[in-house]
Parts: sequence; C-alpha cells; structure tokens
Amino acid sequence: MSGKIYEKEHQIKYYECDTTQKMTLSMLLNIMLHVSGEQSYILGVGDEVLAEKGLAWIIIQYEVKVERMPAFYESIKITTQATSYNKLFCYRTFKVYDTQGNLCVTVNSTFALMNVEERKMARVPDEIVAPYESEFSKKLIRTPKPVKVDEENMISKDYHVRYLDIDSNRHVNNSKYIEWAIDTLDLEFLTTHEIETMTIKFEKEVHYGQLIHSEMSLTKTQDNEVITAHRIGTEDITNCEASIVWKKIV
Amino acid sequence: MSGKIYEKEHQIKYYECDTTQKMTLSMLLNIMLHVSGEQSYILGVGDEVLAEKGLAWIIIQYEVKVERMPAFYESIKITTQATSYNKLFCYRTFKVYDTQGNLCVTVNSTFALMNVEERKMARVPDEIVAPYESEFSKKLIRTPKPVKVDEENMISKDYHVRYLDIDSNRHVNNSKYIEWAIDTLDLEFLTTHEIETMTIKFEKEVHYGQLIHSEMSLTKTQDNEVITAHRIGTEDITNCEASIVWKKIV
Repeated sequence: MSGKIYEKEHQIKYYECDTTQKMTLSMLLNIMLHVSGEQSYILGVGDEVLAEKGLAWIIIQYEVKVERMPAFYESIKITTQATSYNKLFCYRTFKVYDTQGNLCVTVNSTFALMNVEERKMARVPDEIVAPYESEFSKKLIRTPKPVKVDEENMISKDYHVRYLDIDSNRHVNNSKYIEWAIDTLDLEFLTTHEIETMTIKFEKEVHYGQLIHSEMSLTKTQDNEVITAHRIGTEDITNCEASIVWKKIV
Repeated sequence: MSGKIYEKEHQIKYYECDTTQKMTLSMLLNIMLHVSGEQSYILGVGDEVLAEKGLAWIIIQYEVKVERMPAFYESIKITTQATSYNKLFCYRTFKVYDTQGNLCVTVNSTFALMNVEERKMARVPDEIVAPYESEFSKKLIRTPKPVKVDEENMISKDYHVRYLDIDSNRHVNNSKYIEWAIDTLDLEFLTTHEIETMTIKFEKEVHYGQLIHSEMSLTKTQDNEVITAHRIGTEDITNCEASIVWKKIV
C-alpha cells in the first residue's frame, strides 16, 4: 500500500457526541473528510484547485469498522492515506487512534470526481492525484455490497431535506444519510447498541426540498448480533443503501 | 465587568458551514459552549463536578450580534467571560475575532442550573461560580424579548425530534431550535440574506419523540431589513421564541 500518510489530532467536543457521550459516526466521518481535505490543500490540490477545473470530490462508498467509538473530551489521532486509484475511483483509508495508540475505527472509502456543472462523474486527471503518491491500478477494487432491505418486514420514515442538510456541492451531505438511516431505530435500541461495522453506498445525489424515505429492516443473528439494512429513496429512485452490524453495549 | 476571560483558537471546518461556505450560527453556538465548558473544566467546576451534585447548565437566552460571519477555513479566536450572576442566573459573554483582530460576533447569554432529576431550575451555589470571579449582583438583568409571531400571517412546519437532536442532558440541544427556526425560510431567502442580530429565549425543554411546530412570520422594515419572528411549540406549549434581523447579502 503506497501513498503519503497525513495525520491530525482532534479533541472530541460534546456536540460531536450523542446522548451516550460517544462520538456519532456521522460527525466522525465529517471530521475525517476535513482531514483528507487538509491533506489535499497542503499538497496543492485542494477543493479550490478542483473547483477551477469544474470538479469536486464525491464519496461513493464507506466501509466502517469500529473497535471502540471514542467518547467526549478524548483526544484522537486521525490518519489518512490515498492507497490506489484507477480511471474513475480513488481509494482512501482513514484510521482513528486513541492516546494509548489503540486503533479505534478504520474506514475504507471510495472517492470519485464529479463534473459540477453536468452533475456526472469525471475521469481522474493525473495531475490531481500525483501529489498523493498513491498507486495506479487498472483493476477496480471489489467493495462489499450492503445487505438489501427486506421489503415485507421494513419500516419507513419520511424526511424533508432541510437547508442545513445541503453542503457546498449543493446536494445533501453524505453524513445526513447516516442520520436518516439511524433515526429509523428507536431511543431504546440506540442507547443499548453500538455500531460494529457499516457499509454504505451513495448512488444518486439528493437535493434541497426533496422528500426522502428512509427504509429499514432488522435481522437478529445466532451470535446475538443485529443487522439492519437501509435504503434511502426518493420516489422510485434508490439514492443510498447501507447495512449496519450492531453489538449490544455490555 | 469582572470575570476571568478564557480564549481558544478554532479553525472552521466545511461541516460547520452552510452551502454559502459561511459558518452556521447553530454550529458557532455549539463551539462557544465547548469553549465555556473547557473554561469550567480548567477551573475545576466542569460538567462532571456539577453532575455529582445532580446539576447541569442550561441556556435560558442568547442575544447574538453578527458583524461578519466567518467562513470556511478561517481561524477564529473565541473569548468567553462570566460577567455577573444572581441567585438564579449567570450571565456570560462570548466574542469571536478573526485573525486581523476584527470583532465578528458577540453573544450575550443567560445560563441557569437545572436539577437533573427534578428537571427544575436550581439555586446557583457559591462554590460553583466562585472560580470564574464574576460579580454577584442581586439585580436581574433585563434581556430583550423576541418579537411575537404574527399568528394571522405565519407559516408553520412540523418536525419530529430525532435521536441526534438530544444531548447528554436527555433533551433537545439548544442549537437544534435554531435549525428548526431557520428551516421555515426557503433556499432563495437563506442564500441571499444573513443574520444581523438574533434574540432567542428557551422556555421549556423538548424531549425525544415529540412533534414540534416551528412557526414563523416575516416583516420588512423601511430600511430594507427583514425581521422574522419564530415560535417553537409542542401542542399548546411554547418551548422557545426567537426573532432575527436579516440583512441582504450584497
């Protein structure tokens, strides 16, 4: 695995945590993207350089593995590394460590470039990725697919897209899909379970003013694990799919 | 004005900004509270000390004046000072400066202590406030009242309280009321206007699972300013009132 590693310390604030005082995954992913954005900026290929070419990074997929979700007031170290790329996709890994150096969270992500005007994926230009020193590999990496929602045993909640859900790309920020997905589970469940792994795939962008449906079905495994499958849709379109493996908080 | 001043640098992240790349007021208030929380912690009267006494800080009111809302990637300095207190209320000022030392935002706030078990306001114990070295003054400070919503010309939007809206006090976090208030205005308005001043008064806590109504009426003044009046309610209860003076972005 090649690619320059960039790292940054972060102190966890109360507003980055949920009612159990553990960091929320949506906020952790926000902060990770800030760290990779900072690496890009330092390497001279920041968002403003992309914007001049009419491009912006979008996230296609996250694979998350949580060993221990850090809590309020902890200091964490976030590392990020662009590992490899091909014509269309760039692969990047994030790791979160606590002050003892224990690995807390690993996130493998797939990025792509969007032509901002046409709202379509664009080819990755060499000069944009060269500074990261990651490896070019023609082969597409096979990423895991989220478990499908069981339509006969699902619940669905509707959400209107709000002003603060959209970001500078003028579409719903990725972290909001996770909030919609998780909100289909109730307080009792969310305060007694934590995320062990998550796979989330972003398929079509969602815009301001749209009504989205957040669908969820839940399965219990023999190992006492719970798996939830999620679909975020607008009318007949699937905008995002995800599945989460939960473990009981002991 | 007495009271120790505490200050902290902060670099603005993309996820603290709206689609115009300016910091959102709700996120700025979150960060301010982190800074005052850190001062309390350093002075030996942090949240965990209050929790041992069954107490927690709650916010009663914010008065906000924005000279210029800082933008993405700026470094700001936040200062905070507990200015005075009486039996029930503690007054605290926050200021935000840019790297040139220009004052960007001033927030005057009123804090109180809540008995967490009884969910009622508690008397301010001397040993909790002594470390801030702020002034005791019997006199209650008269804070401005938000403009009332014009019920004959209002619009109303409903929101279900979500899991991520509640904080470690097990009620809706103050910053969420501002998000509900602002979301009654449309994208066109919000991308062409910015907040000049805001007065917001938190009256009754809101809990998980409740349905809230966010009501808003809008008035234009002769000076081309727009004033919006807001009420956040649950059934017949008023939980929060606010008014905002907006100026057109030129």
